[in-house]
Amino acid sequence: MANLIDGKTISQTIQDELKAVCEDLNAKTGKAPGLGVVIVGERKDSQTYVRMKKRACEKVGITSISKELPADITQDDLIKVVQEMNDDPEVDGILVQLPLPEHINEEAVLNAIRIEKDVDGFHPENIGKIGMRGRDPLFVSCTPKGCIELLDRSGVKIEGKHAVVLGRSNIVGLPVSLLLLGRNATVTICHSRTADIAATCREADIVIAAIGKAEFVKGDWIKPGAVVIDVGINSVDDASSAKGYRLVGDCDFEECKKNASLITPVPGGVGPMTIAMLLSNCIESAKRRLLPPQ
Amino acid sequence: MANLIDGKTISQTIQDELKAVCEDLNAKTGKAPGLGVVIVGERKDSQTYVRMKKRACEKVGITSISKELPADITQDDLIKVVQEMNDDPEVDGILVQLPLPEHINEEAVLNAIRIEKDVDGFHPENIGKIGMRGRDPLFVSCTPKGCIELLDRSGVKIEGKHAVVLGRSNIVGLPVSLLLLGRNATVTICHSRTADIAATCREADIVIAAIGKAEFVKGDWIKPGAVVIDVGINSVDDASSAKGYRLVGDCDFEECKKNASLITPVPGGVGPMTIAMLLSNCIESAKRRLLPPQ
Ligand SMILES: NC(=O)C1=CN([C@@H]2O[C@H](COP(=O)(O)OP(=O)(O)OC[C@H]3O[C@@H](n4cnc5c(N)ncnc54)[C@H](OP(=O)(O)O)[C@@H]3O)[C@@H](O)[C@H]2O)C=CC1
Ligand SMILES: NC(=O)C1=CN([C@@H]2O[C@H](COP(=O)(O)OP(=O)(O)OC[C@H]3O[C@@H](n4cnc5c(N)ncnc54)[C@H](OP(=O)(O)O)[C@@H]3O)[C@@H](O)[C@H]2O)C=CC1
Repeated sequence: MANLIDGKTISQTIQDELKAVCEDLNAKTGKAPGLGVVIVGERKDSQTYVRMKKRACEKVGITSISKELPADITQDDLIKVVQEMNDDPEVDGILVQLPLPEHINEEAVLNAIRIEKDVDGFHPENIGKIGMRGRDPLFVSCTPKGCIELLDRSGVKIEGKHAVVLGRSNIVGLPVSLLLLGRNATVTICHSRTADIAATCREADIVIAAIGKAEFVKGDWIKPGAVVIDVGINSVDDASSAKGYRLVGDCDFEECKKNASLITPVPGGVGPMTIAMLLSNCIESAKRRLLPPQ
Repeated sequence: MANLIDGKTISQTIQDELKAVCEDLNAKTGKAPGLGVVIVGERKDSQTYVRMKKRACEKVGITSISKELPADITQDDLIKVVQEMNDDPEVDGILVQLPLPEHINEEAVLNAIRIEKDVDGFHPENIGKIGMRGRDPLFVSCTPKGCIELLDRSGVKIEGKHAVVLGRSNIVGLPVSLLLLGRNATVTICHSRTADIAATCREADIVIAAIGKAEFVKGDWIKPGAVVIDVGINSVDDASSAKGYRLVGDCDFEECKKNASLITPVPGGVGPMTIAMLLSNCIESAKRRLLPPQ
């Protein structure tokens, strides 16, 4: 029976560490890291995420500078806001909360973010450098970086292990695969066209599930002793819950935990890490701005 | 017993096709694609490669503009030459022949090439975009692109197949893995820290060997019916040959071909494709310059 990887506690530990880093930076330079947050429209879920991120910034000592823009803003005007943040020396990282309204091309807006402030790590040059030998990305995207932190802080050795990643999206599956490769795992990347995903998964020492399908990964897909990181966040109807739904991961948690040695719960696994890594990236960027190169 | 994938013939076919494309371009615009070639020093092997590339350009109708620079050129002066080529509208692609002399930082020189002229496809942004959904690289590095062409022109279906790539270098292993992923293969990437490379290889429907070790892949690593693309070029002592050596791949060809359904020889497999893909990238670039966007 697996032990839990407690993402909430690990994320809190990291945020405490980051707070100390901010205090140190402030003592040395009199300045604080700044995160620019752009939110367009009034989506409830986006507002919740942005509020959580701003609160987390405040707690560790990052100044958040937010722009709330109307849902009918033009793409050009939105890009102008991003460019102002590009030019603002107090802004170390820029976060544009997704999704954007339909009339706006997300890629065009994300491309407008200067790579030095791309704390989400979505820029293709950053993705390329994650996979390349001898090239360091300026930022590693937050959720993939969070997965690796969870492994590291749970004492999981990555080098030489066979890691199977389910999903190949630009924001999770692909970059987490490249990070595992950089850490010397043998990496297999699966997706919707994979012929026998259960059999492939069964060979994994480390499974990263990032497909966005509720309880898709079954218990007998997990080799006894494997480590399971479940990135998925899916809501399923649940009449017994006050809200009428509950959140589950991409893995059938109760079944998978019988075979796994370590497993992340959903919620409380990868989710809380994403925000900690965003703060971490923003502070990295501020250090590059504020501290003299070593 | 495997059939051979004849890279020499396929490369020639492609060069004939490219010649027709150049003629068409010339008829429409009165102009020819231009390849800038930079060679530093007097290394015999580099001179041979550059001569081969220039001759191939000439045959298909690409103008090659070459700069032969002394081995003691400073890095700054070399970068100036690259920048002149960046600014030269007649140059569609820039090729800096590697290796460079030791006092020069290769990465700095390669970084100086404008991404619009990076026909080698080594820029991290190009690498990132190969792996990302919905993002098209300007150029795909030549050897990896050549491997895919060999599969396509031999009628090998890639989608849904399990491809195992041996090697993860920036110029071969990594980009070919990302290309196979983009073509909907399930991809496993192996390297020197892989625990049981023979067992992993045995599961492959498609093996790409790019490790640089003579005859490293044994016959019983190949699943019956698998397709083998051998990228390796290694010279081994051979007293019976006039030169005292011969070239072999990363696979034990005689043994592997017993199990494989299709296999590339070395030489005459991937090697001739690299140059064809370089010409192809240069022509793509010229089309972007000379033809109005559709
Ligand atoms: N914890 C966190 O902070 C975060 C959680 N998430 C969650 O992670 C999950 C994945 O997110 P994201 O990567 O953005 O999702 P995407 O929808 O962008 O990608 C899903 C991937 O899973 C693959 N896939 C879909 N169905 C199947 C199937 N039946 N079998 C095998 N593979 C399949 C897709 O394959 P193909 O490429 O072939 O279509 C694709 O590569 C979601 O539940 C999301 O909510 C995401 C970001 C952050
Ligand atoms: N046909 C053509 O036109 C071209 C041919 N080549 C040839 O392809 C081969 C590979 O080239 P290149 O990619 O540049 O080589 P690199 O030396 O850059 O990379 C070799 C890769 O193989 C891995 N490797 C090395 N030894 C082992 C081992 N014992 N077991 C498993 N993996 C191993 C390395 O792993 P790690 O990362 O852990 O060190 C590394 O990822 C060479 O023979 C080269 O000459 C190259 C370019 C063009």
